[in-house]
Order: sequence, then structure tokens, then C-alpha cells
Amino acid sequence: MLSSKNTIFRLCRYRHCLKDLKNLGYVKVFSDNLGEAVGVSAAQVRKDFSLFGISGNRKGGYIIDDLLEKINHILGKDEIQKVILVGVGNLGSALLKYKGFEKEGIQIVSAFDADPAKQVKVGNIQVYPIKDISEFIKNNNIKIAILTVPGIVAQEVCEVLVSAGIRGILNFAPVNLRVPEGIIVSNVNLAIELENLVYFVCSMERRKE
Amino acid sequence: MLSSKNTIFRLCRYRHCLKDLKNLGYVKVFSDNLGEAVGVSAAQVRKDFSLFGISGNRKGGYIIDDLLEKINHILGKDEIQKVILVGVGNLGSALLKYKGFEKEGIQIVSAFDADPAKQVKVGNIQVYPIKDISEFIKNNNIKIAILTVPGIVAQEVCEVLVSAGIRGILNFAPVNLRVPEGIIVSNVNLAIELENLVYFVCSMERRKE
Repeated sequence: MLSSKNTIFRLCRYRHCLKDLKNLGYVKVFSDNLGEAVGVSAAQVRKDFSLFGISGNRKGGYIIDDLLEKINHILGKDEIQKVILVGVGNLGSALLKYKGFEKEGIQIVSAFDADPAKQVKVGNIQVYPIKDISEFIKNNNIKIAILTVPGIVAQEVCEVLVSAGIRGILNFAPVNLRVPEGIIVSNVNLAIELENLVYFVCSMERRKE
Repeated sequence: MLSSKNTIFRLCRYRHCLKDLKNLGYVKVFSDNLGEAVGVSAAQVRKDFSLFGISGNRKGGYIIDDLLEKINHILGKDEIQKVILVGVGNLGSALLKYKGFEKEGIQIVSAFDADPAKQVKVGNIQVYPIKDISEFIKNNNIKIAILTVPGIVAQEVCEVLVSAGIRGILNFAPVNLRVPEGIIVSNVNLAIELENLVYFVCSMERRKE
């Protein structure tokens, strides 16, 4: 079953909260707790869980360990997910050093850049020449890539990735990638997020004047 | 007029495309071109523009310079927007070095961290002790902050920011910030974006088997 992106997004967030609560020593959780932590209604939490056949007890709530096990299974967290990163500029190197992915069972196994000066180790991750990327993807059965190359080369790199076997791209380049059907692109455009915020804050300030 | 977040998001993206086309020497553009670049229909482009009283000519399209000037005015690009960053870990330092914001007329004027070891210059930006943050926000009339602190302190820092006068927060911490009405929070959760992508790619692979 392929669920809606928003449902899965919420499942990931519930899972984060559950791990935090577990670390704090809690054993049980109620849909109200999870709703509050994630910013949705308790009814939404119950609806999301029931979609995957998870049911709680109105009085007793959910057992955190059970819930985590079920969500991990749904999200495919039983095994470590290997991804690669392409484009080791400022943003790319930061992501290579970022601890947030590994905690979630996602490991950046190697990185690629066209610039020989960047083909060193960043954190624990080796950066290879971009010409070796197709072979690496095929030999290691990599399905997911993080794309942090400049916008001007993003489409070209994307096509190389897809023809080597990549099925999902987390795209930080500020372009609308054209991909064949069946390939998933998630766009993260930091400059546009910030511009948007600036616009809304300025509009509100102007209205106050 | 406070427009929908999605409309503004698209305006920002049209603006990027227009700047690229202008740099390539183009003078005119059609709604089809912009739609294709941004991944929406030409009708959507015309609808977005007409919301702001911008009209083109069915045969002649839009003059890029005129369009840029109008969009810049709508987005408040006539002046440089000053923002601060809080939390100079790996992700925070990368954002301090990131060139993408400045190009869009957004300047990170200073950064703050609790750790004395991090209170140095990163790129061109000075990192100050976090205890000085309220005074800085007030004295410099800062309205927008980028939040890259650990999740466990994010809510606490958020409250300090808001009471000092911050009106918009670009939040990278993996928590649901609780803010008073009238404060805007945009969440960017990189780990969850990547987890989501992993989930969808795995689901599709499983369906193929």
C-alpha cells in the first residue's frame, strides 16, 4: 500500500516523539499527547494509526514499544538505508557532517564531486570523482541520492543518477527536475523558504502600520 | 493583501526563472515558459499574476524586466532583509556560509550560540553569546530568525526570540514550536524529508517484486 505523503510524514514525526518519550522513561502514550507534539488533532493521530491497522485502547492509550515496533516496520526501519550525496559545496559538506540522518537509520555511504580538490574525506565519508558515480550506484544497489549540486548542472546530474538506478532524489538545487514516471523527487529550497517567510512577515508588519 | 503561502512560493520561483532568463539575454517570456520551468500549468501562472494585477499579452507574452520589477515589489525585494541565525552546529555553520540567501537580498547579519568555542567568525559573520540575543534583536529591529539549535532547547530559545520581537522563524529543529498568534514558523526537517523519500522508494520497490 502506497500511502499519502502527508500520512507518512506524520508517521515519521510520531516516531520521533515516541523515541523521545521512550528515552525519558515513558511506557504509554495517548493520541492526545502525540497530537499535541506534532501539531495535529488526537482524532488525526488515531485515524493515521488505524490506516495501518494499529489500534489503541481509549482508556489505556498505546504502549510506546509496541507502537514504535509497528511504525518502524511500516517505515522500513528494520534495515539501514544507504544513500549517496552529490555536490560537496557548503551545503553538501554540512549534510555529510549532519548527525540527524544516521539516528534515523539512514547512512550516507559516499559522496561525489567534480572538483578534485573536494575529493577528500568529509567527516567519515569519502568524496569520489563524479565520473565514478554510475558504477558505484549499480555495484552497491543505491536507490536514493541527495542532490546538492549547483542549479545549472542539476538536470544533467539527475539524468545520470536515474539511468544508473536511483529512484528517489532529495533535491536542494533550485530547479524543477524533470524525471521519468516512477522516480520521486522531494524538493528542499532553503532560499525560497526564507524568502517566503520574509514576505509574510513584511506583509503583516505593513498591515499593522 | 496577505496571499496564500503557495502563491508566494510560486512567485519566488517565477522570479528565480526570470532572473536566469534575463541573465541569458532574453527580453520576453510566456506563461508556458514559466509554467514549464516551475512545474505548473500556464493557466496557473496567469492566474497567479492576475491576483496581483499583472497582465500579459496573449501574443507577446510578458516583458521580463517589467515582470521582475513588479514581482520584486510584491515580495518586498526593494530593500535588504536582515535575519539572524541561532545555533551554530554543522547545519548552522553551513547556512552561514551558504551563498543562496544573499543572492535573494536576504542577509544573515549575525549569529548566536551558547558555546564560547563557537563564538568566532564563520565566513563573514560574527557568532555572539546567546545571552546577547534579545538586545541585538531589539537594537537592530530584526524580525526574522533561522533556528538551528538542538530540538531539546528549541522551544525555550523560540520564546526568547518572540519576546524580543522576532515575527518569523525558519525552524530546522525537529520539534513543533508553540508560538503566539501572529508569529509565523516555517519548518524544514531534513531527516524527515529523507525518511519520507526512503519510505516511498522502498514501497515502490516492494510493489515491483
